[in-house]
Amino acid sequence: MSRPASQHTVRRHNCALVLDAIAAAPGSSRATVAARTGLTKATVSSLVDRMIGARLVVEGEAQSRPGPGRRGTALHLSPAGPHGLGVEIGVDHLATCLVDLTGRVRTSWLRPGDNRASRPSRVLTRVAAAIRLALKEDVAIGGVGVAVPGLVESATGILRLAPNLGWREVDVRGELTRRLGLDVPVLVGNEANLAALDELRHGCGAPDFVHVSGEIGIGAGIVLNGELFEGVSGFSGEIGHLSVDPRGPRCPCGSRGCLERLAGQDEIVRAAGVEDLPTLLTALKANDRTATAAVHDAAKWLGVALSGAVNLLDLPTVVLGGAYARLEPWLREPLLAELGRRVVSAAWSPVHVLASTLASDAATRGAAGTAIRAILADPDPYVTAVLA
Amino acid sequence: MSRPASQHTVRRHNCALVLDAIAAAPGSSRATVAARTGLTKATVSSLVDRMIGARLVVEGEAQSRPGPGRRGTALHLSPAGPHGLGVEIGVDHLATCLVDLTGRVRTSWLRPGDNRASRPSRVLTRVAAAIRLALKEDVAIGGVGVAVPGLVESATGILRLAPNLGWREVDVRGELTRRLGLDVPVLVGNEANLAALDELRHGCGAPDFVHVSGEIGIGAGIVLNGELFEGVSGFSGEIGHLSVDPRGPRCPCGSRGCLERLAGQDEIVRAAGVEDLPTLLTALKANDRTATAAVHDAAKWLGVALSGAVNLLDLPTVVLGGAYARLEPWLREPLLAELGRRVVSAAWSPVHVLASTLASDAATRGAAGTAIRAILADPDPYVTAVLA
Repeated sequence: MSRPASQHTVRRHNCALVLDAIAAAPGSSRATVAARTGLTKATVSSLVDRMIGARLVVEGEAQSRPGPGRRGTALHLSPAGPHGLGVEIGVDHLATCLVDLTGRVRTSWLRPGDNRASRPSRVLTRVAAAIRLALKEDVAIGGVGVAVPGLVESATGILRLAPNLGWREVDVRGELTRRLGLDVPVLVGNEANLAALDELRHGCGAPDFVHVSGEIGIGAGIVLNGELFEGVSGFSGEIGHLSVDPRGPRCPCGSRGCLERLAGQDEIVRAAGVEDLPTLLTALKANDRTATAAVHDAAKWLGVALSGAVNLLDLPTVVLGGAYARLEPWLREPLLAELGRRVVSAAWSPVHVLASTLASDAATRGAAGTAIRAILADPDPYVTAVLA
Repeated sequence: MSRPASQHTVRRHNCALVLDAIAAAPGSSRATVAARTGLTKATVSSLVDRMIGARLVVEGEAQSRPGPGRRGTALHLSPAGPHGLGVEIGVDHLATCLVDLTGRVRTSWLRPGDNRASRPSRVLTRVAAAIRLALKEDVAIGGVGVAVPGLVESATGILRLAPNLGWREVDVRGELTRRLGLDVPVLVGNEANLAALDELRHGCGAPDFVHVSGEIGIGAGIVLNGELFEGVSGFSGEIGHLSVDPRGPRCPCGSRGCLERLAGQDEIVRAAGVEDLPTLLTALKANDRTATAAVHDAAKWLGVALSGAVNLLDLPTVVLGGAYARLEPWLREPLLAELGRRVVSAAWSPVHVLASTLASDAATRGAAGTAIRAILADPDPYVTAVLA
């Protein structure tokens, strides 16, 4: 029995190699994929034919090419194949987003609603219903990524703590898999990390940055040398709990003067004397002094925290995401001033501040992206299904 | 002319490969080195013989080995070959340290003296004199590493800023090379980064930690996955300039409430009402209340800064170096309490606090280590000298 198992292992590995080569250079011919992977043209052709059957790959037009030889047709990931489903459990909303292998969003769905008022099991019931809704779409779902506003332990996938939801020790993956009877990968991650991943793939294009998302909580995703930095246990990027005013207000996390308590969306809205973010934006556009002062104040605390991150990590770029992206025109100047004062290397390595160009669904899309990567990393089940 | 140049390039590469294999597994035989490097036994034997002639490598006893075949002799880096010279330009001292290829310290030299009182050129004159003293030792010096308390730009090697020395834009490497007519590599690095490198090689053995050295300045070296993290420009680890009390006392760096101003050695000694570190240690051992309170206060500020680093980077270990290593018995409890309160993942990923077991010359030894790595990375000049 060992020989067939081994052949299967080899095919599984080769499938992933070939699909990765097509994903990395869309439009490649079979010959180019063979050259890139080191596999024979016959092996590549055979696998590509099966992948076309499995709707993982589509053929485009034949490429015109100078010189003799057969013209290769251009290979692309298929928009009609398995999709990745991204889910976000926000503090004040649930969202889903169905993304095809090429990264295009097919549908997205959002429902506002305060999840702090409900127990985890009730929220997960609503999450399961949202996933069922997406499962009714006329596409195959090859993986589910779930973004949560808290500490997700990488070794176990368990959500250890979500201070702003009041959740502790919730096995989101296990619960959803059990409730839905899912047989595809379910991957749970920190929302700020997933938003940073989306920024890395579809956003600013810089290889080294910190992406800070301002919502009710504040989280950061740190990208170093083109890769998300997750830390030893997956708990990195908790910028919202940097003590920017060590004797300041208490935080549900147990500390005092956390950035989140001084520059979170709720605090800015409260200090501005308005009801919500849209009202705040209206007031800012009307040059309302209280609103402007509230945002300036938040920018200063944000500058204290981000200067700490830059002093530690020598990061050249800060990307403002979530609510901060929308507040960027008013945050920018006071934030840059604070960074200029507090970053010790600012004169030689000035920090660039960018507003994320991605919509507020970066975390949901980042979650879908992890599901898509899981499909691309192991396409063999789809190929096997075609063979059967 | 292209063929001999190419042959030389190949030999240069192979020399480094072979020496690296011996450094990584001391006691290896020629056959083991051949297997490890993928070179033929003949090539390895020829290079090893030349390296023995160049005093880079020594042969130990023949290894006993079961089975037939010639017994291989054990190869080691030679303690009689080129040495690395480490130099530290401290705020209140100069130090040098001569280390052989095996990492053993041959001699070390220290002269206290406040370098803040002198212009850079005068201090560099004293540094050059210290290096000349080391050059008089009866060993070859294959490289010089210089540790400085400031921002060293990795691309240029220029010391951009040393706030506690009051230095800006000093080309330490160029100045020393010119004054001494050195024809060996001169490598300038941040003292905290170099101390962390020494900790990585000869200290705690952990793959992920932050090493924080308390001196007049406070610096950190961040080690991730077994490698020093230097940042895009080499400016990482500036924990001394984290704003732990944003409205606190002014810092020469231009910011306010920097950790250095609240928990640096000078500040602790002043708050304790004593003259210097030895007097402080005597007072602490005598349970002096003012001294104990001063160290507790510093521990709290240090805890604010280190909890920020851990919240951002999810680091499992903090190593206390420099003066902090000697103060550790009094720093430990209040620091752990502060980390427990302020690190949001503390319940799942508790932070370990260790006192560095290395002496206060970790930066000097780390600087010597970079010089040794430069020799090991390009041993060809020594081998060529033997051939000539």
